[in-house]
Amino acid sequence: MPRKRIVTIAEFSIHPIGEGTSVSRHVKAAIDSISQIRGLKCQVTPMATVLEAQDLKTILKAVEQGHRAVRSLGAKRISSTLRIDERLDKARTMSDKVRKVSG
Amino acid sequence: MPRKRIVTIAEFSIHPIGEGTSVSRHVKAAIDSISQIRGLKCQVTPMATVLEAQDLKTILKAVEQGHRAVRSLGAKRISSTLRIDERLDKARTMSDKVRKVSG
Amino acid sequence: MPRKRIVTIAEFSIHPIGEGTSVSRHVKAAIDSISQIRGLKCQVTPMATVLEAQDLKTILKAVEQGHRAVRSLGAKRISSTLRIDERLDKARTMSDKVRKVSG
Amino acid sequence: MPRKRIVTIAEFSIHPIGEGTSVSRHVKAAIDSISQIRGLKCQVTPMATVLEAQDLKTILKAVEQGHRAVRSLGAKRISSTLRIDERLDKARTMSDKVRKVSG
Repeated sequence: MPRKRIVTIAEFSIHPIGEGTSVSRHVKAAIDSISQIRGLKCQVTPMATVLEAQDLKTILKAVEQGHRAVRSLGAKRISSTLRIDERLDKARTMSDKVRKVSG
Repeated sequence: MPRKRIVTIAEFSIHPIGEGTSVSRHVKAAIDSISQIRGLKCQVTPMATVLEAQDLKTILKAVEQGHRAVRSLGAKRISSTLRIDERLDKARTMSDKVRKVSG
Repeated sequence: MPRKRIVTIAEFSIHPIGEGTSVSRHVKAAIDSISQIRGLKCQVTPMATVLEAQDLKTILKAVEQGHRAVRSLGAKRISSTLRIDERLDKARTMSDKVRKVSG
Repeated sequence: MPRKRIVTIAEFSIHPIGEGTSVSRHVKAAIDSISQIRGLKCQVTPMATVLEAQDLKTILKAVEQGHRAVRSLGAKRISSTLRIDERLDKARTMSDKVRKVSG
């Protein structure tokens, strides 16, 4: 069993404004780009992508990459939300968080 | 196969401030309470609970119930976030949203 | 000097997706509608409208009214975010919050 | 009259969890630290700090600085939210945004 290390967990959501009501092409591009970031675990949910990394810098790289991907598809306005849960007293992962509040 | 109806999809996250760093007891109480709302589907993620309902009123009931549950455990300050994605042109579910941006 | 009463402070932001990059007409309609809710104080900022009310129900009415206003302009998809700061131990207003962290 | 340049507008909110219900000392430290970032304009609201910068990188620096400031006061768990409105088709400032939806 691997030792658990302190990680930062966050959630990122992004969409263009003004590119029609279907934005899955843009969201997919952002997720594809984010999922290539080294040291970042991703989990796609219906409203966002949950991110897990060992430092905040890696989380913030996801925001940059996400915007870059949506921009590269020609979007003229981009709205995004990042929510961060940084915990320094205890190691816990994305799945720990779900387990603790379920069942 | 059931006909798909227009639904509103949202995401709700809640935690007390000032009750220590471990808030899973409060989050669990909120989720338990929300999951009993008729007509509301819930899916717990590491950062929030995704909600699916046929109308906005049912989504907003989750916010009320969530706050009530955390209040009832004695919390003195409560922070919450609700993000709504209301789509009126097309029926789609929580799982449709994930499918469209994956793979 | 009026006695301070316990109030809930929140922040609401709303925009249509797929109605072009300029959404100020829709945002204005939402704000106009919200600002008529009895018992609700509003303060417009560059990214949201701050809401102050004596109970959560009044805050949630703003979400409903905001969506209704944007829907009534024909929007087919609507994205919104509500962040709530409910404090039960102490009375404080929107302006108290700013004063405490400034200067 | 200065020429307007394309800017990114965002909003950042941060608080510790588990340091009591009064978090203004932590929020103030974050704002003080953020307000020293070169090229970043800040405007404090009751629920967040609005940020305006010429590039996304400067906005993201605010997130890093904010977390660092709250960490440096000993917080063991930190919750934050960043909402970004990046517009590429048109120059507009924080005050333009408010003017467009008011009055």
